[in-house]
Amino acid sequence: MAGGFRAPSTGRVVRAVLCDVFGTVVDWRSGVAAAVREFAARHDLSVDPEAFADTWRGRYQPSMERVRMGDRPFVSLDVLHRENLEQVIWDSGYDPGQFDAGDLDDLARAWHFLPPWPDSVAGLAQIKGDYIVGPLSNGNTALLLDMAKAAGLPWDVILGSDVTRAYKPAPAAYRRPAEFLGIEPAEIMLAAAHPADLAGARAAGLATAFIARPDEYGPGRASEVDPGGDWDLVATSFTGLARKL
Amino acid sequence: MAGGFRAPSTGRVVRAVLCDVFGTVVDWRSGVAAAVREFAARHDLSVDPEAFADTWRGRYQPSMERVRMGDRPFVSLDVLHRENLEQVIWDSGYDPGQFDAGDLDDLARAWHFLPPWPDSVAGLAQIKGDYIVGPLSNGNTALLLDMAKAAGLPWDVILGSDVTRAYKPAPAAYRRPAEFLGIEPAEIMLAAAHPADLAGARAAGLATAFIARPDEYGPGRASEVDPGGDWDLVATSFTGLARKL
Repeated sequence: MAGGFRAPSTGRVVRAVLCDVFGTVVDWRSGVAAAVREFAARHDLSVDPEAFADTWRGRYQPSMERVRMGDRPFVSLDVLHRENLEQVIWDSGYDPGQFDAGDLDDLARAWHFLPPWPDSVAGLAQIKGDYIVGPLSNGNTALLLDMAKAAGLPWDVILGSDVTRAYKPAPAAYRRPAEFLGIEPAEIMLAAAHPADLAGARAAGLATAFIARPDEYGPGRASEVDPGGDWDLVATSFTGLARKL
Repeated sequence: MAGGFRAPSTGRVVRAVLCDVFGTVVDWRSGVAAAVREFAARHDLSVDPEAFADTWRGRYQPSMERVRMGDRPFVSLDVLHRENLEQVIWDSGYDPGQFDAGDLDDLARAWHFLPPWPDSVAGLAQIKGDYIVGPLSNGNTALLLDMAKAAGLPWDVILGSDVTRAYKPAPAAYRRPAEFLGIEPAEIMLAAAHPADLAGARAAGLATAFIARPDEYGPGRASEVDPGGDWDLVATSFTGLARKL
């Protein structure tokens, strides 16, 4: 099970490859936009599904920041997604009170059923042969489990942010998984498409791998394709990462 | 993903089949005895490996009971197994201080690498097609993860007792997994070889399946082969349970 890759930044052999999920493993924008498009058609709304998805995602960091700063007690990402949805509906010129609450719950659950990037399932399955694989996401366990079952993501273990009770880039979000896995933080490699996430992982003592996802914000739109740091590995897919590991 | 089995005791459709592990999914006695046999040969000790395994297992419930009763703060099963090992070595007429601590750590980790019963992997893989499958064990996450990787147990999710911070049959041990999975306790079925465990699950509102494991305590030895209760399903293997689900 020891994969054998020794990370330059830590000098330690990696035992677990844990992955950022939204944007790194799955294409949140296409998945959310598809659900919004269906919702809008059913309710005869005039919204741009992709722009709606971007606005919804735009409220993600600010809503977690209140939890990270201690301004509100820990609540799961499902709760934040549901709250943020109501705000985005207001922003789109509609009153969320005009919709059935169960209908809005269903739309918020779009975040549970996002499509993987084409290389994710095959690449993770390859990495799984030599390493522990799991998400290291701000998503809660139920969200990550629904996603894994629907998309066939072959995780060995799922410890959502509701288990660690911390949101990245708080150091605890990167360190607590090591306690549950019975290994050292330096034996974990975070694979992520976002330099800020990798910087948080490195500060917490983890090894790091950058995966470029140029289409995260849509084809041809500005994104983080420059690694933006001296990470232990750099790849453009999980199959590519598997080869380098 | 909805398997469709409606449990008579709850009237609810089961969505997750969570499994007791020691004795139900894996053959702890053979696995531990094999590790003890190797250890004894290396150190030239006169011990009966199966009897040693039974004595070690015999200290399992009393050691957890101190945590359940609040006599000591929660500690993981790895800690309890390691402590209990020293006691069993004393009981066998040896001083644990005569051995290297790392050697005893390795022996205690035998509980991470137990062999599955012959039907477990195939049966769980079948059940996984229609239900969430995971352990519901007093084992900690690292133990259950090591075991799953080594034995090929196809869990969707692993939430050890260090995540729920409760030991069965405490009600919280059965109820907290439902919170993480985002479902109701009544949507979980516990599969277990031990009527006391099933009784705890039923008291906490879960559906129940008894799996007879007549060889848990060795061939021909007294064991719990009588269901000992009116459980929702009764089977003699996980492949048998898969057929009934």
